[in-house]
Amino acid sequence: MRLVPSPAVLRRLSPSFAVVLLLAVTPQANSDGILGFTAENAERQREIERRLDGLIDASEQEAWNRRMSSAPNHVGAPHNRENAEWMARLFRSWGYEVEIEVFHVLYPTPITRVVELVEPTHFVARLTEPVLEEDATSGIVDGRLPPYNAYSSDGDVTAQLVYVNYGIPADYEELERRGISVEGKIVIARYGGSWRGIKPKVATEHGAVGCILYSDPRDDGYWQGDVYPAGPYRMEYGAQRGSVSDMPTYPGDPLTPGRGATEDAERLAIEDSPTIMKIPVLPLSYADALPLMQAIGGQVAPSGWRGALPITYHIGPGPATVHLKLEFDWSLRPAYDVIARLEGSEFPDQWVIRGNHHDAWVFGAADPLSGMVSLLSEAKAVGELARAGYRPRRTIIYAAWDAEEPGLLGSTEWAEHHAEELREKTVVYMNTDGNSRGFLNVGGSHSLERMVNEVARDVIDPQRGVSVWERRRAREAVRGNLDPDHDGDMPIYPLGSGSDYTPFLQHLGIASLNVSYGGEGGGGSYHSIYDSFDHFSRFRDPGFAYGATLSRTTGRLTLRFANADVLPFRFTNLANHVKDYLKEVMELADSMREATDRLNEMVMGNQYELAADPTKPYTPPQEKEPVPHINFAPLQNAVDRLAEAAERFDDRTAERLNALVMERDEMRQLNALLIQSERLLADDAGLPRRSWYTHMIYAPGFYTGYGVKTLPGVREGIEQRAWVEVDEMVERVAGAVGRLAERLERD
Amino acid sequence: MRLVPSPAVLRRLSPSFAVVLLLAVTPQANSDGILGFTAENAERQREIERRLDGLIDASEQEAWNRRMSSAPNHVGAPHNRENAEWMARLFRSWGYEVEIEVFHVLYPTPITRVVELVEPTHFVARLTEPVLEEDATSGIVDGRLPPYNAYSSDGDVTAQLVYVNYGIPADYEELERRGISVEGKIVIARYGGSWRGIKPKVATEHGAVGCILYSDPRDDGYWQGDVYPAGPYRMEYGAQRGSVSDMPTYPGDPLTPGRGATEDAERLAIEDSPTIMKIPVLPLSYADALPLMQAIGGQVAPSGWRGALPITYHIGPGPATVHLKLEFDWSLRPAYDVIARLEGSEFPDQWVIRGNHHDAWVFGAADPLSGMVSLLSEAKAVGELARAGYRPRRTIIYAAWDAEEPGLLGSTEWAEHHAEELREKTVVYMNTDGNSRGFLNVGGSHSLERMVNEVARDVIDPQRGVSVWERRRAREAVRGNLDPDHDGDMPIYPLGSGSDYTPFLQHLGIASLNVSYGGEGGGGSYHSIYDSFDHFSRFRDPGFAYGATLSRTTGRLTLRFANADVLPFRFTNLANHVKDYLKEVMELADSMREATDRLNEMVMGNQYELAADPTKPYTPPQEKEPVPHINFAPLQNAVDRLAEAAERFDDRTAERLNALVMERDEMRQLNALLIQSERLLADDAGLPRRSWYTHMIYAPGFYTGYGVKTLPGVREGIEQRAWVEVDEMVERVAGAVGRLAERLERD
Repeated sequence: MRLVPSPAVLRRLSPSFAVVLLLAVTPQANSDGILGFTAENAERQREIERRLDGLIDASEQEAWNRRMSSAPNHVGAPHNRENAEWMARLFRSWGYEVEIEVFHVLYPTPITRVVELVEPTHFVARLTEPVLEEDATSGIVDGRLPPYNAYSSDGDVTAQLVYVNYGIPADYEELERRGISVEGKIVIARYGGSWRGIKPKVATEHGAVGCILYSDPRDDGYWQGDVYPAGPYRMEYGAQRGSVSDMPTYPGDPLTPGRGATEDAERLAIEDSPTIMKIPVLPLSYADALPLMQAIGGQVAPSGWRGALPITYHIGPGPATVHLKLEFDWSLRPAYDVIARLEGSEFPDQWVIRGNHHDAWVFGAADPLSGMVSLLSEAKAVGELARAGYRPRRTIIYAAWDAEEPGLLGSTEWAEHHAEELREKTVVYMNTDGNSRGFLNVGGSHSLERMVNEVARDVIDPQRGVSVWERRRAREAVRGNLDPDHDGDMPIYPLGSGSDYTPFLQHLGIASLNVSYGGEGGGGSYHSIYDSFDHFSRFRDPGFAYGATLSRTTGRLTLRFANADVLPFRFTNLANHVKDYLKEVMELADSMREATDRLNEMVMGNQYELAADPTKPYTPPQEKEPVPHINFAPLQNAVDRLAEAAERFDDRTAERLNALVMERDEMRQLNALLIQSERLLADDAGLPRRSWYTHMIYAPGFYTGYGVKTLPGVREGIEQRAWVEVDEMVERVAGAVGRLAERLERD
Repeated sequence: MRLVPSPAVLRRLSPSFAVVLLLAVTPQANSDGILGFTAENAERQREIERRLDGLIDASEQEAWNRRMSSAPNHVGAPHNRENAEWMARLFRSWGYEVEIEVFHVLYPTPITRVVELVEPTHFVARLTEPVLEEDATSGIVDGRLPPYNAYSSDGDVTAQLVYVNYGIPADYEELERRGISVEGKIVIARYGGSWRGIKPKVATEHGAVGCILYSDPRDDGYWQGDVYPAGPYRMEYGAQRGSVSDMPTYPGDPLTPGRGATEDAERLAIEDSPTIMKIPVLPLSYADALPLMQAIGGQVAPSGWRGALPITYHIGPGPATVHLKLEFDWSLRPAYDVIARLEGSEFPDQWVIRGNHHDAWVFGAADPLSGMVSLLSEAKAVGELARAGYRPRRTIIYAAWDAEEPGLLGSTEWAEHHAEELREKTVVYMNTDGNSRGFLNVGGSHSLERMVNEVARDVIDPQRGVSVWERRRAREAVRGNLDPDHDGDMPIYPLGSGSDYTPFLQHLGIASLNVSYGGEGGGGSYHSIYDSFDHFSRFRDPGFAYGATLSRTTGRLTLRFANADVLPFRFTNLANHVKDYLKEVMELADSMREATDRLNEMVMGNQYELAADPTKPYTPPQEKEPVPHINFAPLQNAVDRLAEAAERFDDRTAERLNALVMERDEMRQLNALLIQSERLLADDAGLPRRSWYTHMIYAPGFYTGYGVKTLPGVREGIEQRAWVEVDEMVERVAGAVGRLAERLERD
């Protein structure tokens, strides 16, 4: 089938070009078009995708998951290496060239962990997760890591406790209002409200000497639903492991920022690494946290701080006094990245990379193995397709990263080590991680939004029999998100951090996607021993139906990138989002200005003091420097230019493709441009105070961790009231946006 | 001091009138004016109020409160009668004519109370509140009523439990979505979300055979703050007594609707009373509720339904099965209303009525005695002022109502019994009830808003030394209620129900106010034995400082009404609010129309089903009849007319008063109009299905209980989708508003 341009498209073409075009078209409908494909190739691609669907086998995923999650597979564990080698053998058997690249990374493991309440009563935290009859692997005690936070410092401190809610900057403002300092104290913060690494970082900034994290049952326990093994939610002794390195500064090995952690790489001394925490940090279950929380006195916590423990939440400090002692083994460990390559038949130097990590905190049936086995399934199918005569035109690389859990180490070291080649050749990086029953979630580069929407309309939901696009759209409609569309597309969300796309997107400027299903497989096994095959297959994706659906989704994405005539970017979607983000930051500045003026007026008028209960300690806020008016014009102009250039470019590309008037060389040139397009949005100088992050549109927040900040330099400058920096960043973001616009105009 | 009209006022006057006026004025400032007073009388009034302040004695209130709360004083208790007689003696000693009017009211008290869990385990609810060392009266067991709900039916039922959240109509819609019926079940509902009587009423409408109410610690217990005796909040065995009669149909004695419950009054049979519940209802503490809630299985409750018990909240039905057995003594009891009268020196037939109830559920130090002793304090001061030569110009009546707790019986029977005379003579009814430390709260007729604001600016906050108006305003500012003003006035809230103003305002159409302080004396003693002198004086108003402030506030209000030259009504405030309410109901209709269209579209498109988790029971909503466009024009026109008439009337009244050009007869005529003004907003036919409620602007909600519905006939008609009724009610409300406008125009 060939594609026919619409009358509207024809009207927009110049008369001379229209003639050429009219000669080329055939009178057929456009309904089965695929972005980036000629009509003929779209037909062939549909055939490939039909075959793909048939090659995906959910029961295989189930067997693989059971095998890979049968023993602890954290960095350095014997089963971690076994999994890597087993996957390498599989990839080879499917026709891939495979290499296991080893990096040598700092991976601290605990030697001593003590949390004891010493005042007003005595209590020693248990710090272990019990064996459950209903969970087969929970009985495997040998070789598994207990609950701890990687990159906590060593420490031995005894101090009064202060409850700091989520431990984010706004919580410390509340403490200030109440005249409470954490200087010299141990803070106890509940998980949630930000990525965990933010909590000890902010506590350190405020002078705390130790940090305890715990899972409050409000956020992660019985309040949410029935607890394991009766239901999927976190049981009383379940604890959340996890990294607390300062990932928003840079992820990866703390000792080798910006370079691969090869055996002979230059390394920082541990004490010089800016991303290792300076205070001891440990996670607790809510059973362990309850006696501590119960022993805290002082002021009653504000309502937003109260969780679901059956107590009145107090802030302290004290009388609860805690002894926290932690010692770690600070050895380097090998990280095994499995890299499997299928050379492209036409464009071997254009790389489509798909990745998922294979290391877990313990057994990791959901995180990461549900995504990993789905990737294996996809890779097997792609290998079989190649053997059956459907070899992809571009090179496909499947990566199984190690050491994601401590801070994206496997992917980051590989990306840093191969930076130059990756910047040159990579079309796209597509990530998966955990997966479960429910709705399609895609985040990533907005220039890929249209393409993702097309794929979502073609994949069938295994429960409802409609497309996964329709199902997701129904949910947004029911939730009252009435305007989820850009040109009829459902938006894909902008990426912050939290998985292995970060080095590709935010360090190297490679267009990226992160794909998963979820929302109906709720639970609380995250980073505990109960993230097991039994838990996963019972609660999160019974029968691995959504594992298969994920393979069908990412398989389509991979193969469309690999086989497209013109790479499936559409910049109008990007321009629309950037316009929205600009509007947001402008409104942020305006609302901060109004709020500041109002605050200052209220401070002058003594309103806070008059409104406060005189029997309770209260320090009214102080006047703040007024918010200046900011010159957003350079960015406004750049965004307008991008919008116009994008529309012209998208239209012209579609027309040329549909009209079959493109020479092979033109196409090659066009694809070279597209491969580099995301790179133009990066700026080598990076973000203020964290130059590793170079993308000017997307970054994880400096004080949110995983949570994204769009136009991060500008937005965080405003939030931090750094006005000179805001002016500079407006210029630099405008520069990046302008570079892309200029490049699109040139074509 | 005499008042000078502003140049703007002079310009608005007709030339001939201006001449008269110019002759009368003297060149002095208007700064100390009081609404409704000539300059000369304002000066005298200020002198009276200065003296009033000096006559209020907080320590006297403390002693009275201790005495009155020293034994159970519910309806029929010996100490209830003692309190009435003791107050009568006090009033007499202060120079009042006193009468104790006795009504004979149905007041059921419990004989048998059994709640036991019979499946899946056995547990018998304790149903009593323990003695606490820190609370002197908690040891008085003899003669006190245990936790129960008055006007529950007798019953002996055993059935499975269903948890229905707050038990309001929206909760039953949620149950319907989940395919859960309460037919033949016992529902358990937490307190909150509506007045308690709504819960068994709605449960009965849905076929439940019994109803258990409990205090969830999220709403009323440890989640809120430290529990008694460590702090003021409800302890684990504290239970909330209270009436469950169908008060939104009519309050007062269930057997004598619309007439006083005199000894020989005609009475309904108990089984014919429409306001007595048809199923057994009992309140539990959260300690008693926990084993029941824990035993409920089935679906997990939606997040908005979850409280602070340390469990996963389930809905049921069952397996929890409960045996609920209740028997009551259905005797009539005497209710003692103490009525103290101080005859006005100039206008004895114009009555200013102040009331507070004196009956409690147990000891009632806060509810009602904190308000009662403040009223006594005020009355004593007014008596002393009269003796010192400042006898009020109008008659003041102080009322101490009995039997408020079971459903406003004392006040309602008295108001019904004296309806005709009250309608003719009453200027205003002013109510107090509980009082505590904090901020001034006033609800009532909006025509009194300006006057209340003037008083609030003249009363000093005992903690901060600024006016109570400034303090309240600071709180609104800090809370971000940026636009609290009508012409510079802070709004007074519209009255629903919940205390003794209801028969005066909503049945008789008498302008009313309800006044209290609060917001800093938080706690959970409400309707438990711990509403004691010890609790109150420790946590709610130490030293009775706000009791004294309340007396100074209500004393000013009383004396300004009693002494005003022209009664201090200002209809522009009323018109502004009514305009706002009309806007609200019009927006309600519009948003319901949009929501209905959207719902129908979603139902047609199968969106709810596609968005739902297929593994969970789910019944999608059904299409609804589209919302028609409503003809609001009659009401819009009436409101516009009122706004214009009000402005002219207010201006003209102020001018005439300031200019001292009013004859005594004119003033008398004007006051006669003002006394009747609120009556014009009532309509004898009353509201649909509850004709006892005649006020067209304010009513308690049929499904909220205490919560107000403004323009109730129109608003509830829209909410209930009763379109024909809405059209009728628009006409009737327009009629009432128009009658007032017309009357104001005539003057």
